[in-house]
Amino acid sequence: MKKILVIGIGAGNPEHITVQAIKALNRTQVFFILDKGYANDDLLALRRDICERYIEGRDYRLVQVSDPRRKDDSSSYRSGIEHWHEQRAVLFEQLITDELKAGQTGAFLVWGDPALYDSTMRILDQVLARGRESFGYEVIPGITSVQALAAGHRIGLNRIGEPIHITTGRELAAEQGAQISNSVVMLDAHCTFERFIDEALHIYWGAYLGTPDEMLISGPLREVSAQIRQARETARAQKGWIMDTYLLRRAVF
Amino acid sequence: MKKILVIGIGAGNPEHITVQAIKALNRTQVFFILDKGYANDDLLALRRDICERYIEGRDYRLVQVSDPRRKDDSSSYRSGIEHWHEQRAVLFEQLITDELKAGQTGAFLVWGDPALYDSTMRILDQVLARGRESFGYEVIPGITSVQALAAGHRIGLNRIGEPIHITTGRELAAEQGAQISNSVVMLDAHCTFERFIDEALHIYWGAYLGTPDEMLISGPLREVSAQIRQARETARAQKGWIMDTYLLRRAVF
Repeated sequence: MKKILVIGIGAGNPEHITVQAIKALNRTQVFFILDKGYANDDLLALRRDICERYIEGRDYRLVQVSDPRRKDDSSSYRSGIEHWHEQRAVLFEQLITDELKAGQTGAFLVWGDPALYDSTMRILDQVLARGRESFGYEVIPGITSVQALAAGHRIGLNRIGEPIHITTGRELAAEQGAQISNSVVMLDAHCTFERFIDEALHIYWGAYLGTPDEMLISGPLREVSAQIRQARETARAQKGWIMDTYLLRRAVF
Repeated sequence: MKKILVIGIGAGNPEHITVQAIKALNRTQVFFILDKGYANDDLLALRRDICERYIEGRDYRLVQVSDPRRKDDSSSYRSGIEHWHEQRAVLFEQLITDELKAGQTGAFLVWGDPALYDSTMRILDQVLARGRESFGYEVIPGITSVQALAAGHRIGLNRIGEPIHITTGRELAAEQGAQISNSVVMLDAHCTFERFIDEALHIYWGAYLGTPDEMLISGPLREVSAQIRQARETARAQKGWIMDTYLLRRAVF
């Protein structure tokens, strides 16, 4: 039986890694590294750094493959994602067939936590459903950028008794401002918070969370919105990529 | 300057701890352990186990104090909690004054993540606002029971593009079933999911997550609801305490 580990490696700080994840790294013979073809060599380097820092032996291989590029010509966002996942399932199946022998363990390293806005488990389930490869798989949770954001700002995600909403920039765009009480927003490339500057909201924003380049800005949304856009654009231009997240919280008077 | 570390230690598996948290444990001279006076000696033992397992020297102290008991006679849930937090702020201030010398580092160990349904940061902010003690504090994120639940069931917390709602049993009780799409429920002592068995919901339930006693049950809510109640009651009677959490997810047809 082949084994696959889906290992959460934290939000960017190599010290976010858990003891459970370090043990999982050391059980792995083959690491599958998906190269997204963006200018984010930093992220590839950070993955290699994690392997070198925490794996004690040298009897492992890194297999780097190009991630299928997502096409934007689908009729809907959802069907576009589904088609992309099918392509990835074919790729994952091929990797497991070609690169893993019976009894060996392969791993996918996931930024943050495999359960939060990541598709690796869904794709492995699709590979199993295709029925051409069989394997067991196991999931190791990791610190997310949401947790690094809260720790950086030293804030709770919820106030007393309040629920928390975790959403995407895309979903946030469809919301009414009045509905927002505690919304954590991920995957927002378009500063969607700007739509809500007339609401009595406070924003806690962070980028490159957990890394030496960490940026944190917080304040009343109306007052810091422009500052965040500018900081975001400057940093993205300098580094070639940005990963950021934020909490929008209704102010209490 | 005195320093306080608020350290997330994971959901119950000692291997959930991060490298960052281990380093923080090793920077600490005094650990403040709040004894809640329940029959959960297991949880105290697990905290001691984490200190013994990961701290290299022996030059640290554990200071164990009784947590003020929350009274249920307040006019509202919120004011009851606020009153309890004030009592805790007085206690924390006294601990920092009496047990820490200038330049020393104290720590609170928090189950899960200090940002999720935990009051330690809020209380430290209250101590600072009282103005009688001054100190710096730092927050180290930890793996939550929500992440352990998802890893145990090998599920994403969200489906493609869907938001996630994290809430409490108390809040869930006030919701309409039709509003539930992906709701993670914490702190529910009353099997509030039973109110929604007529909805087309799937439940992923877990208790003692990450520990050797971990229990996982999943299935259509209507079919497994009674099984979960029974498993929960039996386990709580045997161990004297239970910590559990679950995800309610609308079924897709």
